[in-house]
Amino acid sequence: MSENAMAVVILAAGQGSRMQSDLPKVLHRLGGVPLVGHALAAAHSLDPEQIVVVTGHGAPAVAKAIARLDPEAATVLQPEQLGTGHAVRQALPALEGFEGRVIVLYGDTPFISPETLAALASHPSDLVVLGFEAEDPGRYGRLIVTAQGLDRIVEYKDADAATRDIALCNSGVMALDAGLLRRLLVRLTNDNASGEYYLTDLPALARAEGHRADVVICDEDETLGINTRAELAAAEAAFQARARARAMEDGVTLTDPASTFFALDTVIGRDAIIGPNVVFGPGVTIESGAEILPFCHLEGCHVSAGATVGPFARLRPGAELGGDVHVGNFVEIKNAVLDEGVKVGHLTYLGDAHVGEHSNIGAGTITCNYDGVSKHRTVIGPRAFIGSDTMLVAPVTVGADAMTGSGSVITQDIPDGALAIGRARQATKPGLAVRLMTALRAAREAR
Amino acid sequence: MSENAMAVVILAAGQGSRMQSDLPKVLHRLGGVPLVGHALAAAHSLDPEQIVVVTGHGAPAVAKAIARLDPEAATVLQPEQLGTGHAVRQALPALEGFEGRVIVLYGDTPFISPETLAALASHPSDLVVLGFEAEDPGRYGRLIVTAQGLDRIVEYKDADAATRDIALCNSGVMALDAGLLRRLLVRLTNDNASGEYYLTDLPALARAEGHRADVVICDEDETLGINTRAELAAAEAAFQARARARAMEDGVTLTDPASTFFALDTVIGRDAIIGPNVVFGPGVTIESGAEILPFCHLEGCHVSAGATVGPFARLRPGAELGGDVHVGNFVEIKNAVLDEGVKVGHLTYLGDAHVGEHSNIGAGTITCNYDGVSKHRTVIGPRAFIGSDTMLVAPVTVGADAMTGSGSVITQDIPDGALAIGRARQATKPGLAVRLMTALRAAREAR
Amino acid sequence: MSENAMAVVILAAGQGSRMQSDLPKVLHRLGGVPLVGHALAAAHSLDPEQIVVVTGHGAPAVAKAIARLDPEAATVLQPEQLGTGHAVRQALPALEGFEGRVIVLYGDTPFISPETLAALASHPSDLVVLGFEAEDPGRYGRLIVTAQGLDRIVEYKDADAATRDIALCNSGVMALDAGLLRRLLVRLTNDNASGEYYLTDLPALARAEGHRADVVICDEDETLGINTRAELAAAEAAFQARARARAMEDGVTLTDPASTFFALDTVIGRDAIIGPNVVFGPGVTIESGAEILPFCHLEGCHVSAGATVGPFARLRPGAELGGDVHVGNFVEIKNAVLDEGVKVGHLTYLGDAHVGEHSNIGAGTITCNYDGVSKHRTVIGPRAFIGSDTMLVAPVTVGADAMTGSGSVITQDIPDGALAIGRARQATKPGLAVRLMTALRAAREAR
Repeated sequence: MSENAMAVVILAAGQGSRMQSDLPKVLHRLGGVPLVGHALAAAHSLDPEQIVVVTGHGAPAVAKAIARLDPEAATVLQPEQLGTGHAVRQALPALEGFEGRVIVLYGDTPFISPETLAALASHPSDLVVLGFEAEDPGRYGRLIVTAQGLDRIVEYKDADAATRDIALCNSGVMALDAGLLRRLLVRLTNDNASGEYYLTDLPALARAEGHRADVVICDEDETLGINTRAELAAAEAAFQARARARAMEDGVTLTDPASTFFALDTVIGRDAIIGPNVVFGPGVTIESGAEILPFCHLEGCHVSAGATVGPFARLRPGAELGGDVHVGNFVEIKNAVLDEGVKVGHLTYLGDAHVGEHSNIGAGTITCNYDGVSKHRTVIGPRAFIGSDTMLVAPVTVGADAMTGSGSVITQDIPDGALAIGRARQATKPGLAVRLMTALRAAREAR
Repeated sequence: MSENAMAVVILAAGQGSRMQSDLPKVLHRLGGVPLVGHALAAAHSLDPEQIVVVTGHGAPAVAKAIARLDPEAATVLQPEQLGTGHAVRQALPALEGFEGRVIVLYGDTPFISPETLAALASHPSDLVVLGFEAEDPGRYGRLIVTAQGLDRIVEYKDADAATRDIALCNSGVMALDAGLLRRLLVRLTNDNASGEYYLTDLPALARAEGHRADVVICDEDETLGINTRAELAAAEAAFQARARARAMEDGVTLTDPASTFFALDTVIGRDAIIGPNVVFGPGVTIESGAEILPFCHLEGCHVSAGATVGPFARLRPGAELGGDVHVGNFVEIKNAVLDEGVKVGHLTYLGDAHVGEHSNIGAGTITCNYDGVSKHRTVIGPRAFIGSDTMLVAPVTVGADAMTGSGSVITQDIPDGALAIGRARQATKPGLAVRLMTALRAAREAR
Repeated sequence: MSENAMAVVILAAGQGSRMQSDLPKVLHRLGGVPLVGHALAAAHSLDPEQIVVVTGHGAPAVAKAIARLDPEAATVLQPEQLGTGHAVRQALPALEGFEGRVIVLYGDTPFISPETLAALASHPSDLVVLGFEAEDPGRYGRLIVTAQGLDRIVEYKDADAATRDIALCNSGVMALDAGLLRRLLVRLTNDNASGEYYLTDLPALARAEGHRADVVICDEDETLGINTRAELAAAEAAFQARARARAMEDGVTLTDPASTFFALDTVIGRDAIIGPNVVFGPGVTIESGAEILPFCHLEGCHVSAGATVGPFARLRPGAELGGDVHVGNFVEIKNAVLDEGVKVGHLTYLGDAHVGEHSNIGAGTITCNYDGVSKHRTVIGPRAFIGSDTMLVAPVTVGADAMTGSGSVITQDIPDGALAIGRARQATKPGLAVRLMTALRAAREAR
């Protein structure tokens, strides 16, 4: 294990009672992913050897979300909430044998930047606390710094007037040597009003052992924690504001930035145009020069250069649009690859499908991919012409250059170049419409 | 009649010429309902014995709206607009025999809170005026208060410099004893520049009779009146801001509060999640834990716990979604009950229908509920499987555990457990697609 | 040619490297049209005899856009970017023989008002510069004004401290006599740090010739230029704010102004109601009293009085809705005229069509207007009743008072009053649904 080995412990055990929610706080979503996902993403920026998430309230749900977000992260249970020091202690078994630096993050503090974490990680002192100059220090803990570095952290309620005048506050984030952490955690006491074990006692203990502690300072914005739904909405707004500004700096046109919603991992290429009212869920990549028209909802999909999407289109996970593909209004694409130049203009559902290049999918086409028990695939060859209102009963294959008559239900494969049609002949009955309407009106009046 | 009996008179006769509108001012909508609906809702918070709305400009349209909003409210006509005193006088016949307290509200002042009204209603004085400390008193009438209570109301244009320095202003809202009101209204004169009868003269007249008048003070925000469309838009923004804040305090997640639009009566349970761009029209209730995805429009409907709606879904009046129902994209539900666990994923119209539990409705399904003259009902039993693009020609019944083939037009009832199918057999014609396209292209070139 | 003859030169050659874009700067859109379209619209407010656009970076694309926006405007090429004076010189051949006043505008400065241009055009001096009092003059050029009018323009980098204290700044816009312009342009030198020819040298040259130069002052807002995507987004917000305010002053109800998006040429009548989340592309006119419900996208279309559109409707170019037409949810109308009283409620695509008055178009109707090679028209007579899920295979005509059975594919014309139907008879197979599901489940388990 290298000398610069990193491990990250994420504290995610809190209930968040002020959220007024049955959902554990760290599972509330920000930028389309659970709050704890932001802490995980921050942790990964350090390329750590281990990530350990400490769960508590709602532990099974949190552990399940962690497993989905990051299968390699370990989760440990803090059975009772006895303070941050106690929480980190639960992570020690998972870190057994780890030698290096441990960084403690919080599942409800999503905005710590990679640059700040790098500064914490590379700082030469044995223990480093992340601090910030608070505009309004309020009830934050204060950092007492002397010429010898960080002397100690003083909780607000224990602070005298002079200490309360200090604006340098404790974010809670801390980096320290793994061995030091193990030694100090054992010496923590719960000899305080709450009867809890606090991480904030560590700097003073480290100093007493003769170690040097220090402070890395970040913007106050980075330390924003989330305790109420209004704070969550404000955090979402802050997240979106940053994502929008970054996209514009990168050369993306946002017609109305305020109604464009990004997820944590949205990637958009230069000269892409995004209209008003577009929502990106997780896992979206948009290539340079694609255009997303207003009122679109995209998630887990890829849109290639030259493609146009919307208005009123939904791309679900697994939608992959090739170059110059057009997906129009009231169209849903799910788990389907559309090769170059495919057009799907109107009122269509394509699910579990592959469509070959330059095929044209008529309005009202539906891939009937579900038989009530299982899902099946539809394969359409290149240059096919699918007539309007074609039902493609999967599993089914439509050949290259093949065609379907509008209103057909396709249950059998269609060879290359063939036309398949399945519809009744039109019968026209002179005068019948008028007689029928007359009868219906008479019937209504008779009621 | 109890001593605490209440009656409310709502003045709603004004034209609102600055609205630049042919619609009477009080019928412009705020939070999805006409402005006068807000005054009616405020009135109902007092549980009054009577509500009388005074109409004038556009009286027939206003009376019709009142009848729809509150069938028990009386409407009277003020044939000419001769001042607020004259307006209240028109309400007296409708209040004949009423003994108790009369509260005068305004149809274009939607934000008076129930707490403020309760304070007015329960105040011991014979006459109580609702006042507010104005940030910029401008041209408001001023309230002259002495140790003996409210002395009089002075109109801005009659006020000397010292009076204009008073920041306590008249909202126009007044509560007073019914008998006193009747006596004083007779004594009002129109001996002023406008030749109108003003309610604002009542406090001085009451004092002259030896009654005590007083002031109840509310926030200036509550007294906001609406005179232009820009003010209406600002009032809508204020209404939405409050509704959004209240929902979040109650434990609702609003991903983007700024694009969530509430109606006056929207009810949303704790831990419901509301995505960006959701519009609630009147009459919506959402149970705890339901999720409304982005781009949805709901009106007059109920969504049960565990249900998910959208994106791009429309629930119209009479839509009732049971527990764990899923309504997906490009789906419209109108006057239809969907029992627990029903799935309606894509491109569907269900109108005038009942769908039994755990049924699956395929993409493109339509209830053909209108025959050109009347509407008819569709009934689908539990655990049915409706194939894609099924037309259900109502009146029609699909039995429990029944199934329809995709692309079928169902005109006859389907027994329990049966499969109904109505479609032509697929015919596949080798090479025909290629020959057809070649011919079409040749034809185009020949033109 | 009259003495008041006007010509406008629009400089549109810049690259806009700070846009981070491959698209020429003047082609980025604002209010739905390219930036240069705003300059063209401003130019037209002067009713000029000639408009000449100077192109450079991306000249072919810019010239193509100009040809589409204004076929009568001339475009000339500035092959190298050697300064504004050099740019205007490229326009001189196109102005050969023109006697009158030349006004120089900029393709990236979209907010100059018609009133300001009129003031420039009608000013008696031989040369007039458009100036503004800058809140923060920063690096703008300063206008040196004496009792004899505008003395000269001093670039920031050449300005001494006293000159930098001047708040009156140069917008770049200039109006001058054509003959004077020709004479002075020849005398411009590139004897400066950049080696470019600057229009800003003209006032001093004109004065040296004994001409009077003057300044017309406009609001700083009008001179806003666009250099980055963030500035473009800010300009879009400013454009929208003005358009929204103007619409409300004109008596339009905007439920949520912030989510209503106008184009440069949107026209909306008094008492029209526009719900939240409505996007107007270019070329939309909405008559008085029409209502656009939330989530609509309109472009190149006309909506008559009494019509209602949406929610979730898309009107594309050529959609013309007569009085009292209703277009409902998930409906797309393109190049189609809908006569008075037509109803198209749900999930429909009408393209290249004419629908006669009071016809009812059932849910799921599609005009199959494309055969893979050409587009064809559908004509529906008055009072027709199109059953749900009718495919109208164009070219096809449905007569007056005619009817189609739901689920029919209509390939032949239907006479007046006739009913056309094309569907297979329903076959109902008792018990088969249950047997099928059992088999499917068994098959899945066997896998």
